[in-house]
Amino acid sequence: MGSAVSLAAGQKATINPEAAIFLGKIPRVPFASFLAPFLTGPRRIPGFRDRFKKVGTPIEESIIAKYNLRVKRITIAEVSVVVVEPPHIEPDNTSKIILNIHGGAFVLGSARDRTSLLMAAEMGIRVYSIDYSLSPEVRYPVARDQCLTVYRHLVRDFDPKDILGMGSSSGGQLILSMLLLAHREELPMPTALYLCTPAADLSGDGDSMIVNAARDVMPTSFLAQMVRQNYANSEVDDRDELYSPVFAHYEADFPPTIITVGTRDCLLSSGVRLYWKLRAAGAKAELLISEGMWHAFDWETEMPEAVCTRAAVRTFLTEHTPHQHTTPDPATADQTGTPPNAGAEQQAGSAGTGARAGTGRG
Amino acid sequence: MGSAVSLAAGQKATINPEAAIFLGKIPRVPFASFLAPFLTGPRRIPGFRDRFKKVGTPIEESIIAKYNLRVKRITIAEVSVVVVEPPHIEPDNTSKIILNIHGGAFVLGSARDRTSLLMAAEMGIRVYSIDYSLSPEVRYPVARDQCLTVYRHLVRDFDPKDILGMGSSSGGQLILSMLLLAHREELPMPTALYLCTPAADLSGDGDSMIVNAARDVMPTSFLAQMVRQNYANSEVDDRDELYSPVFAHYEADFPPTIITVGTRDCLLSSGVRLYWKLRAAGAKAELLISEGMWHAFDWETEMPEAVCTRAAVRTFLTEHTPHQHTTPDPATADQTGTPPNAGAEQQAGSAGTGARAGTGRG
Repeated sequence: MGSAVSLAAGQKATINPEAAIFLGKIPRVPFASFLAPFLTGPRRIPGFRDRFKKVGTPIEESIIAKYNLRVKRITIAEVSVVVVEPPHIEPDNTSKIILNIHGGAFVLGSARDRTSLLMAAEMGIRVYSIDYSLSPEVRYPVARDQCLTVYRHLVRDFDPKDILGMGSSSGGQLILSMLLLAHREELPMPTALYLCTPAADLSGDGDSMIVNAARDVMPTSFLAQMVRQNYANSEVDDRDELYSPVFAHYEADFPPTIITVGTRDCLLSSGVRLYWKLRAAGAKAELLISEGMWHAFDWETEMPEAVCTRAAVRTFLTEHTPHQHTTPDPATADQTGTPPNAGAEQQAGSAGTGARAGTGRG
Repeated sequence: MGSAVSLAAGQKATINPEAAIFLGKIPRVPFASFLAPFLTGPRRIPGFRDRFKKVGTPIEESIIAKYNLRVKRITIAEVSVVVVEPPHIEPDNTSKIILNIHGGAFVLGSARDRTSLLMAAEMGIRVYSIDYSLSPEVRYPVARDQCLTVYRHLVRDFDPKDILGMGSSSGGQLILSMLLLAHREELPMPTALYLCTPAADLSGDGDSMIVNAARDVMPTSFLAQMVRQNYANSEVDDRDELYSPVFAHYEADFPPTIITVGTRDCLLSSGVRLYWKLRAAGAKAELLISEGMWHAFDWETEMPEAVCTRAAVRTFLTEHTPHQHTTPDPATADQTGTPPNAGAEQQAGSAGTGARAGTGRG
């Protein structure tokens, strides 16, 4: 425990024992600010990816097995998208999808990660998770523009009222930036949004960036340098509203949004500030903060705080999406769960996301 | 600035300049944990009170003058209550009151403080603020029981639907503890509740009690020792549900409650945990967190973060109280703003709080 992040008795007392065990395994990194530039450059990214995958893959596979999820890979306008389908789709969700943009500091993670899997399984809904290109192979704004391309197709192929959005950490930046552009194009907005500890400010400012710098899952200086050295391009101003969307102008028609963070989270301030920004715009926003929790704790599969937060998120999303009051005709209902408007999409010459979801390649 | 609490450039960047100036004046106290027991005992309390009054009184007087408030002192069942009345009462609020329990670590502060004055002025509503006995002159649970006595009378004299509750910091503990007892007595609950950075856990535990220990308005160790040496009695268990009401059992009929805290607030964790507790009980709760803000920042008169938070609180309280749809008959409407049912109270032989509000002694 001597080499782990700080955790006093008074902090252990107000979190679940599982959370204390988790924090007890997070290494304290001495001289983090000094070391960060050397340990997070492009040549170091493959190592980070390997370690992340080694931890993540067995958990992902156990979730797929436990919930009997179907995972397919489709292509929408040349962008790879992972479609996760639970065996039972909630009656209210048969025509709905969640568009997910995964996290991983823009440099790691995958579209089939826990965020997609748990959301599909626990909410009983199809998740379309964009497998955007990672950095440093591409830099800002390539991934964001891939997400926008996919979104343009989704709002054509589905009733926009049936689209929910979701992004975690860097995925929060990507989905916000993408929706700001979509709004400029006058595309319809998704019906509701879930932002898990969104990276809404890449400038490095914020109360929590300082106070939680050495007590979150990774030193803040590592995250900041990882983004700076791999994701940022040479021209971007880190207060540009599309790069750091907490600085953007929002309007009242922005989708109802639930934001989740923890008190130990380096992005606590990012979530707090985004909440007030959306609220000031007249948009519906809810901010859920959890005691003693770290960056993206939401996705711990069994930890009580995470389970509780995910349940609250589902409540919000359900409350802010239209309900399907009609019972589908069993004679015409598609047992595979293909969205009812998939046929129409095909006729309209679309990329056929709906149909491909049922005939995916992977 | 060298002797003030820490405030890095990245923290200054996300708060208003007024807030940075405020934080720049808060002294850093070296060896706070060591010194706390010696500096916060009963003999030190008069000094704290004097300093608190010296800062607070001119601000209070300027608020009274600016808004032309009437401040009266009445007695309800031998407990002194300050009634603050704004010159203009909002049409929806003519029969409503806010019951306020002020803060001050149980040892200082007054019923005529900024919390009563600003609330009355900005919401256009009468505020009844209990002038409970301070510690160390009395100890737990004397002040709480005084509050309960007043509450018993208020729910008789007013329609409980017209009573809103409010408490700041230690006042949050007092109002929660009082309402838990009132619920056991099967008294009606107030229609909505505003808890400004409530002291819902006096055990000293919580993530923010550690991480914000030396960066809030007063060292956490001072507050903890002040409460322990002056307010606690010799028998109380600091996890008793009436002493630390975050440990209490709540039910879905608990009033809709809005809780406000800041990320620099030592009671951030207290607010966060209480929010989840109320939510889990099925009660309506909202948690408002403000970036970089300290304990009880809400009551800075002009600071943008505080102004914004108070506006959000008023929105919540208005949304969760019944609206008066009928226009009062001008021939019978009481121009002094005395509650419409004051006469009936008198006839019923009550302590006559409503009527006394109009004929107060101070």
